[in-house]
Amino acid sequence: MYPEIRLSLPDWIEGFCSEWKQDFDSVEKRMEFVIALSAANVKRGSGGPFGAAVFDLDRGELFAPGVNLVVPHSNSVAHAEMVAIMEAEQIAGTHNLRGPGLPKLELASSTEPCAMCMGAIPWSGIPRLVCGARHADAESIGFDEGPKPEDWRGEYARRGIEVVSDVRRDEAIAVLQSYLDSGGEIYNTVDMEIG
Amino acid sequence: MYPEIRLSLPDWIEGFCSEWKQDFDSVEKRMEFVIALSAANVKRGSGGPFGAAVFDLDRGELFAPGVNLVVPHSNSVAHAEMVAIMEAEQIAGTHNLRGPGLPKLELASSTEPCAMCMGAIPWSGIPRLVCGARHADAESIGFDEGPKPEDWRGEYARRGIEVVSDVRRDEAIAVLQSYLDSGGEIYNTVDMEIG
Repeated sequence: MYPEIRLSLPDWIEGFCSEWKQDFDSVEKRMEFVIALSAANVKRGSGGPFGAAVFDLDRGELFAPGVNLVVPHSNSVAHAEMVAIMEAEQIAGTHNLRGPGLPKLELASSTEPCAMCMGAIPWSGIPRLVCGARHADAESIGFDEGPKPEDWRGEYARRGIEVVSDVRRDEAIAVLQSYLDSGGEIYNTVDMEIG
Repeated sequence: MYPEIRLSLPDWIEGFCSEWKQDFDSVEKRMEFVIALSAANVKRGSGGPFGAAVFDLDRGELFAPGVNLVVPHSNSVAHAEMVAIMEAEQIAGTHNLRGPGLPKLELASSTEPCAMCMGAIPWSGIPRLVCGARHADAESIGFDEGPKPEDWRGEYARRGIEVVSDVRRDEAIAVLQSYLDSGGEIYNTVDMEIG
């Protein structure tokens, strides 16, 4: 009667990840990967222009990738960060990515988290977030990123979550722009009152 | 290599919903149902003390139920509201619950949305939210509900989302308390700095 909720990564992701030749030993290289994920998602038409991944910082390895799947999966929750977090938790077998026995993990996202993803990260236990484009960059192509507290970085710091911003921001913006230019759907559901 | 993310409602939910005798023609009756869902979730041990549902206001019918599934499903995203939203979107076949051809929908939640769920609701297009217990009531049993902007209700109003608060609040609080008393897991992953 009530269907199971299912989210699977696009078919191209496994090959994409296994063929990636760069290592992940710097924040610049990890961001290069998630921006490439966002670009591939646009090119393949498998979702919005956003990529994210959870990395194992102890081993310098990819732990779980994610891309935006909102429109093809009819699922407004399926932002790249949410997909990467849920995928990482399935792999780890726990809802707590800061739990015992796990390596130190980092979430890298091609764009700074929207209000939903900002709220999701503390629940996941991820202790470190790296962002490419800014919230305002996503809004400048038309997405309504939602209500976030002004001092969300301070709120993260109080919870022991480190934030690194503006890594390869221009490259991340270029993918957002390419999505807009290619006629990609700006899938807001609400119209903001202006003024 | 990367597992599919799956969330299914607990086995008892179908019987619970089909055996519910009350109709859903008032906000009090709809809240009575989601509080009963939260209580059943505690009693059955199938997740945290939170229930939610999407209702079809045109027909006065249940559209999609949700309960918290975080610990049993190893999924920090699986709050009751998120499950109900994703379930409703699967049923509707769209990420936009305000889309053409859909009835007017309402999300009722036994507790006011945390930061994540607060951010998720505008993306879903749901035009109306009804809450039982307050954010502070969930925090008083130990959950860290996360950073929300002070004026999130105003931000919702600007997006055309109506909010009704404190419906059957005492009954909703009683379920939170029963979860705490029964030794239910308060599954925060981060320790807040105090002071």
